[in-house]
Amino acid sequence: MPEPAAPKINGVVETCLYVDDLPRAVEFYREVLGLTPMVGNPERFQSFDAGRGRVLLLFIRGATLETMATSGGDIPPHNGEGPMHFALAIAAEDYATWRSRLQTRGVKIISETRWDRGGQSLYFHDPDGNLGELVTPGIWPNY
Amino acid sequence: MPEPAAPKINGVVETCLYVDDLPRAVEFYREVLGLTPMVGNPERFQSFDAGRGRVLLLFIRGATLETMATSGGDIPPHNGEGPMHFALAIAAEDYATWRSRLQTRGVKIISETRWDRGGQSLYFHDPDGNLGELVTPGIWPNY
Repeated sequence: MPEPAAPKINGVVETCLYVDDLPRAVEFYREVLGLTPMVGNPERFQSFDAGRGRVLLLFIRGATLETMATSGGDIPPHNGEGPMHFALAIAAEDYATWRSRLQTRGVKIISETRWDRGGQSLYFHDPDGNLGELVTPGIWPNY
Repeated sequence: MPEPAAPKINGVVETCLYVDDLPRAVEFYREVLGLTPMVGNPERFQSFDAGRGRVLLLFIRGATLETMATSGGDIPPHNGEGPMHFALAIAAEDYATWRSRLQTRGVKIISETRWDRGGQSLYFHDPDGNLGELVTPGIWPNY
């Protein structure tokens, strides 16, 4: 009997970054990028509502190297070193506002890229040097 | 004049993992997780349609350490060391099928967790040791 096809994956729910100074990173993602904090633990992580049911997670580097027991089961260890990359969705009509907002906040725009397929990107670094990107629709076959 | 609020972020478009053996990783994400490959470059990266307009990117570790010029602008450098964490969305009714599929494919289930808020997680490692999670809705205030 042939194996059935994989059930559908409905997108990425959790995207994780690893940071050295959690309060500093939380301030950046909340105040500059305007993300709403959700659940957190100052000794471990902070989650943000990244929009559209997606979650951006900031973990303190080195704080999740041990298995964490919960009443419902274990959370296995993980960790990361950067400078990692991630991209957040913005509307095309908000591109200029975002460029101006980053500049006003003293966040250097490392690069601006216009893609052959369509769409534009604004690249910046978060306080830990992770490479963030704000992207308008059109840069991928599915976005 | 008060600064206007941040325009809305519409979710995370690109979630990145860094791998040592790109063909091995591509086979895992395509054959085991059933993701559809999109654009790629065998010396640099592979993108996958992760569903719902979201993109999972596998980069060869160490292959994106230099700025890459394109006709539309520069792509700045980035890189990462793991074992990083990420979570993919699955439907609650597909949980048992996914558990069985991972086991059939020889992918060890490291942990199964049932969350107080609702929803369940299946944890596994990709071939590079990144900590993947398949999550049913309910585990976050916004998912």
